[in-house]
Parts: sequence; C-alpha cells; structure tokens
Amino acid sequence: MRPFREVSRVVEREPGRFDAAVDPEWSIGGKPNGGYLLAMLGRAATAVTDHDHVIAASAHYLRSPDPGPAVIEAEVLRPGRSTSQVRAGLVAGGTRCVEGLFTVSTLPAGSTPHWDRGVPAVGAVPFDECVRLPSIGVRGQRVAILDQVETRLEPETARFRQGEPTGVGELRGWLALPGDEPFDPVSLLFAVDGFPPATFDIALSGWVPTLELTAYVRALPAPGPVRILQRAQLIESGRVDEVCFVWDRAGRLVAQGTQLAGIRLG
Amino acid sequence: MRPFREVSRVVEREPGRFDAAVDPEWSIGGKPNGGYLLAMLGRAATAVTDHDHVIAASAHYLRSPDPGPAVIEAEVLRPGRSTSQVRAGLVAGGTRCVEGLFTVSTLPAGSTPHWDRGVPAVGAVPFDECVRLPSIGVRGQRVAILDQVETRLEPETARFRQGEPTGVGELRGWLALPGDEPFDPVSLLFAVDGFPPATFDIALSGWVPTLELTAYVRALPAPGPVRILQRAQLIESGRVDEVCFVWDRAGRLVAQGTQLAGIRLG
Repeated sequence: MRPFREVSRVVEREPGRFDAAVDPEWSIGGKPNGGYLLAMLGRAATAVTDHDHVIAASAHYLRSPDPGPAVIEAEVLRPGRSTSQVRAGLVAGGTRCVEGLFTVSTLPAGSTPHWDRGVPAVGAVPFDECVRLPSIGVRGQRVAILDQVETRLEPETARFRQGEPTGVGELRGWLALPGDEPFDPVSLLFAVDGFPPATFDIALSGWVPTLELTAYVRALPAPGPVRILQRAQLIESGRVDEVCFVWDRAGRLVAQGTQLAGIRLG
Repeated sequence: MRPFREVSRVVEREPGRFDAAVDPEWSIGGKPNGGYLLAMLGRAATAVTDHDHVIAASAHYLRSPDPGPAVIEAEVLRPGRSTSQVRAGLVAGGTRCVEGLFTVSTLPAGSTPHWDRGVPAVGAVPFDECVRLPSIGVRGQRVAILDQVETRLEPETARFRQGEPTGVGELRGWLALPGDEPFDPVSLLFAVDGFPPATFDIALSGWVPTLELTAYVRALPAPGPVRILQRAQLIESGRVDEVCFVWDRAGRLVAQGTQLAGIRLG
C-alpha cells in the first residue's frame, strides 16, 4: 500500500503544468475514483497560489482516465489576498478527462463552529464495530481501492451485502487512509467520494460514474479516520444525486460533498 | 418588470462568444444575484452544444460584476451524444467575474422518479398564505430583485423580519418569476439561489456573497411558482454552506442547489 500523499502527488514541470500518475489501485473495476482525481487537481490548484487549502472544489468528469501518467494544467483565474480561484484540468492519454474549479484560501487552525445544524441521523457505532468492506464486491467484481482505504460501514447500513438493503438510501461508517495517514484538506477532497454509492442501500447496480462532484472543506481535521454519512435523495432518468458529510474523529464537521452520478437500475 | 427570458438573454456574436446584459434590477444592494448570472452562463453553455438543458452546473464567483454589458465565453470541453461538458465564463468591465462548468443533456418529458427520499420537513403552506418579501430589507437596504421575483415565505420562517429568527436556519416558501413566467431548466439555475440566505433564520447579516454555487436540474418543471427549501448547515470561519431544494407546483423535485458563501456575523 502506498500512502495517499504519494499516489496523489503532483510535480510541477513548468509553471502551471504538473506531472501526475493515476495509481491503478485507487480504482473501482479499473476506473479511478473521482474523489482521488479531484484531490490531485486540488494539489495543483493550491500549488499555483499562495494559499494552503482548497475550500471549495467542483469538478465535471468528461471521461475516465486509464491508470498511468497524466498531466495537470492549473491556471489562476483571480489571485486574491484571502482567497484565489483556480481552474485545473487532468489530461491523460492526450485527452482531457476531468476539469475542476477551485476556491483556495488558508483554513485557520483551532477554529470552532459559530453555528452547526448538528448531525443528521448519524449513528454512533465505533470504528471497530463497523464492518470492513472487502475488495471483492457483492457481484464478484474487483474494487481495488478497498484494499487501499479501510471502509467500514455500520452493520445496519451494510445489509446490502446480504441482499437486504434497508431502502433508506444511506450509508454510514468510517474511512481510513492507508497506514492511517492523517487526513488533510487535500485528502478530504477524496473522502467526500470515498464511500460506495448510497444507492447500494436501495438496490445494487454496476458502476455509478460521477458526472459532477462538489466538495467544501470547512476545517482542519484531527488525525485519525473520518466518520462519513453518504445519502441519496433522488433517482430519476438514470441519474442520482448524493450528499456526503465528513466528520473528523473529534466529531467536527470538516467536509461536505454533493455529486450527480449516472446509474442503471432494474 | 422585464421577463426572465429577456434579462437572461445571450446573443451569439461569434462562435462561443455571447453578448449579455446584467440587469440592474436583478440585484441585492447593487450586486447581481449569483443564480441569475449562473442562468446566463447556462444559456450560453447549451447554445454551444446540441443538447437542450443544463443538468449540472457549478460556478465559482471571482468578483461581482457591475450591472451593464457583459461578454460570455463558452467552450465545449467534450462533445457527446447523450451529454456534453462546457466551460463558460462571464467577463464584465474587461475582467473575469464568474467561471462555470456545465454538463448538458436533454431532459426527457414525462419522466417520473425511480426513487425519492421524500420531502424533508417542508410545510405545506399554500402560496397565498405565505408572506411576500418587500424590496426594502429589514435593515432598510434596497433588495431590487424582490420587486422582480415574488418571494414568499411561510410565516413561521419569516419571523426574522420581526427580529425573531427561529434559530433553525431554514427558509421555506415559494418563488415566482415576473409575470409568473413558467420555470424551465435555465431559470431553475436561478431558483437554487433565488431565496434569501437561510442564515437570516439564525441571525441577520449584511451581504452573503456566494463563493461557489452548484445546481442539479432533475426534471422539467410544471408551469407556475416553485416551492423552495433553503437550509444552512454550518457557519464557521466566516463561511456558510446552504442547500436548496426546488419542487414544482405538482410537488416534483426539479432542482437542487448547494452553495458556499461568505458571512459576517456578530
């Protein structure tokens, strides 16, 4: 297992142009995870500014890159003192695969919430009592990324594995990086897409390709695994939206995600 | 009052380059509404493809354009048979003000939800029993857009007007375009940012500038006003995220929005 900071590394070759390598293991059925690609773009986006952290990222997925070498192009759209905006795109095999927009800033250490709606319906099942997902899916397909990250579901929301989804459209549990590497604002961009589709709790399906993914990073996370709630709202016309809440081990809401994905059911 | 289709009109001057005019009335304290600008970009994004509707839009706001003439540049990133992706930016006064990414497709008429989580805590107060917001804000500031669109709040969530916010961080009600023009997938891009900040239900503040706005259009809306739920989740480090649900008059969930905005409180 290679650390996340390594598989998501970008190396500036010339101003605004970065070399990257899409790791074959950070994939689902051979397709790289969308949050993983977003994190690579996010690294390039912060590198071209004076700010340290992505606070808002939105990416549209044009096509799935093959694992292997890739180039990331990043361009500052507006440099600012407290926030800047950056456009970044990932090109692999000579074609553009992902394009994203980033608002970058520097998150203060030791901030506290001014107001928090609170935790919506997240259980409190501890990490060790959650079920670790194996890298062989229910339909026998290989989900290589599950050998890299430790994805643990609350037993109630893992019932799809026995062919008994609850129908609520919600997965809850924990996510840990290889070697329990501490999460940071870059790996949180992965975390918002790190869980299986919440639709598994409704009906199993094949690949659920992300069309658009938006992530907000709200605070610097405490070390350790993050708690995740992944929730579907509406399946219609072959598309589903999902929201994702990410809390650090101390219970702080540190990131939020929303995505629109394609889905084939029935 | 000018119809929405007119104030959001874009005219292709050369391939991928559109003339637009930011209407001074579609503003809050002189700043154009972010969803209104997103809708203009969305018009240009569909115009450069063979598809009819934006299904996913994400924009980052660099600076607030002054009302007046603007240019929109739109470029197809990937043309596809069922969906295409487009980048579009709005330039006013010679500077880039908004940049957005768009996934466009054609929404089928007569689709029905395959699965719907259901309506989260939306009351059922009819349009006529909701309180219309006047264009003079609680602090005496001019909110010109409220003379254009009819924004009606359920009385329970309009208590901030009497200095008695409920603290729940939620606004519910209805939104109607000038002349009750039917909503379409373009004006739904406005609708997801058409309500006042949900933070008014927590504490009043000045301008809450949108930093990032993501919209998903899920179905073709029935004619008539749309029902809206605008909800805040977390205020921290001078920023707030809000989600928005938009249902058509027939009760169909037709659009969803999420945004990160700046906020100054206390």
